[in-house]
Amino acid sequence: MNNYKISVIKGDGIGPEIVDEAIKVLNAVSKKCDFTLSYKEYLMGGIAIDTTGVPLPQETITGVLDSDACLFGSIGGEKWDTLPRELRPETGLLKFREEMGVYANLRPAIVYDELVNASTLKPEVIKGCDIMVVRELIGGIYFGQPRANDGFKAYNTMVYTKPEIVRIGKQAFELARKRDKRVCSVDKANVLEVSQLWRDTMNELSKDYPDVTLSHMYVDNAAMQLVRNPKQFDVIVTGNIFGDILSDTASMVVGSIGLLPSASTGDKTAIYEPIHGSAPDIAGMGIANPIATILSAAMMLRYSLNEIKAADLIEDSIKAVLKDGYRTKDLASFDAKEVLNTTAMGDLITKYI
Amino acid sequence: MNNYKISVIKGDGIGPEIVDEAIKVLNAVSKKCDFTLSYKEYLMGGIAIDTTGVPLPQETITGVLDSDACLFGSIGGEKWDTLPRELRPETGLLKFREEMGVYANLRPAIVYDELVNASTLKPEVIKGCDIMVVRELIGGIYFGQPRANDGFKAYNTMVYTKPEIVRIGKQAFELARKRDKRVCSVDKANVLEVSQLWRDTMNELSKDYPDVTLSHMYVDNAAMQLVRNPKQFDVIVTGNIFGDILSDTASMVVGSIGLLPSASTGDKTAIYEPIHGSAPDIAGMGIANPIATILSAAMMLRYSLNEIKAADLIEDSIKAVLKDGYRTKDLASFDAKEVLNTTAMGDLITKYI
Ligand SMILES: CC(C)[C@H](C(=O)O)[C@@H](O)C(=O)O
Ligand SMILES: CC(C)[C@H](C(=O)O)[C@@H](O)C(=O)O
Repeated sequence: MNNYKISVIKGDGIGPEIVDEAIKVLNAVSKKCDFTLSYKEYLMGGIAIDTTGVPLPQETITGVLDSDACLFGSIGGEKWDTLPRELRPETGLLKFREEMGVYANLRPAIVYDELVNASTLKPEVIKGCDIMVVRELIGGIYFGQPRANDGFKAYNTMVYTKPEIVRIGKQAFELARKRDKRVCSVDKANVLEVSQLWRDTMNELSKDYPDVTLSHMYVDNAAMQLVRNPKQFDVIVTGNIFGDILSDTASMVVGSIGLLPSASTGDKTAIYEPIHGSAPDIAGMGIANPIATILSAAMMLRYSLNEIKAADLIEDSIKAVLKDGYRTKDLASFDAKEVLNTTAMGDLITKYI
Repeated sequence: MNNYKISVIKGDGIGPEIVDEAIKVLNAVSKKCDFTLSYKEYLMGGIAIDTTGVPLPQETITGVLDSDACLFGSIGGEKWDTLPRELRPETGLLKFREEMGVYANLRPAIVYDELVNASTLKPEVIKGCDIMVVRELIGGIYFGQPRANDGFKAYNTMVYTKPEIVRIGKQAFELARKRDKRVCSVDKANVLEVSQLWRDTMNELSKDYPDVTLSHMYVDNAAMQLVRNPKQFDVIVTGNIFGDILSDTASMVVGSIGLLPSASTGDKTAIYEPIHGSAPDIAGMGIANPIATILSAAMMLRYSLNEIKAADLIEDSIKAVLKDGYRTKDLASFDAKEVLNTTAMGDLITKYI
């Protein structure tokens, strides 16, 4: 019987509540599919600052690298926002991504028929929409050197090398192969040299994937098209900052960020987390929506542990729960039959498995 | 009687058709408001490449700088896309902006009640929406040095100095004073040094505008909020590349890009143009919507010539025409009573004045 080592980072705000529900569901599904999971908890973000003085303790780095995959809640909160830059939760997060080598951030945006009214976009515009945004996560302007701010002049460097573009491109093409076989690469090649290299490299790479159609779009147009006609997209691949912006735009197609999971993968390990933040304002109230985190756990099963059947089971169970009209508070106004709290939602998804 | 010198760049594709309609309307309104306009045409973009060999002839630079304001159609087309970078229409456009010193790009996104169904966003989300995006236009990563691409590694520099941030910030605060007195500055200060300087400078500047409320938003969140709840915004101010992306997102709030004007202003001169492109596929067919260009002409009257009454007249006349159910082809499916061609629409707006 396979046993997987899962590192768990619950983090701040609602993080602990939602991760607990995901673990509940994981345990149920592992029993059913004959594998076991052993969990080990690590600190990061605000709680790490409070406990150890730094946002990313060395123990966390070592522990997560030693695990098969990492389940992540959410970090940060106003309390730590006034700390010096090197001590802030965000700085810890970026260092964490870099240390883990997770260069590919996958953000699916899938519109469930049951929640087609949850978006501010018209139902007919989004019904059936299924987009996968593949964002480069440890390069580009986020990490580029040189960078400085002397109070009069400040600058950052947006930089990519060909190998960096190739490895993220491969992820996008491979994913497209299992989907609708279309990759849209987003850049600003009419203005930026770094985008020209991006585009040229994608074109070159596409020769290895004759079964996948590659198109290119400028980032301003892509932002517009995601609102105008999101159904035109299958896989979108783009750099770090463009991906940051576009994946948030894509999340609005779905409407509720309480439903959106993500995976950050690389050659060493992978991190699975909801795209929403730590929501300190509702922490501890038991009303947080655990579905994004549970879907992230399903992505973990699918992409890191290759337990496809278990992943399918979770996703199907969530769809069934939504279909039967069960909602958390954030989705209460969208065809709810009954509104559940965080643990009741976790319990019900477990029961449906 | 005041006489104003207007430089006119009709450009490529539908450019000539739509500019002709704007001039028709300008002539009518100037007669009514007792001023005169004298026009002089200059070449830019594809037509300049074909006629003179370069996308931005020196004569155009000198001529526009010598005028009170420039009315601009649209440039570019596939025909010129394969030329070397330094000869492409976009390169000419960026050089033009730089030479004209037009650091502030103003893009209003106003939802007309008559066309509240034209957006892919739900009517209740956008009704009454009135956003002004103020984009820095001649700095940031578009123009930053160093920049290079050696085929293996490529990079660009996102750079701002305090005086650059101050001058665009002032524009935003001044505009907000005449509106709802709220400025939202968009950056990525949790990651970028250049954004930290941007944010610090905006905070400092806001002390000179105690009557205006300044808020800050990260660019990823701003892209999301523009879809989630666009009515929360009054004036948005941001850097060049973020503004490129966000103003296109904001245009989708309105829905039809055939309605969206823009102004690019600075200390030397100003350029007024529709935000849509040259649409080579429908050029010469007489179906282009001239309203965005006519609204751009109204902005010219308001901001460069201080002919406020004339600007109001144009805007009111457009509203009346839309209210009475007249539409161009692009808007035919939104409560149209009669569909007009390009010149008929120009004629009707003129008649309503
Ligand atoms: C918190 C921030 C540094 C982060 C990013 O910009 O990557 C967040 O927006 C995200 O998308 O995960
Ligand atoms: C054509 C392109 C260079 C230009 C820009 O990026 O500024 C366009 O997208 C715009 O917004 O005017």
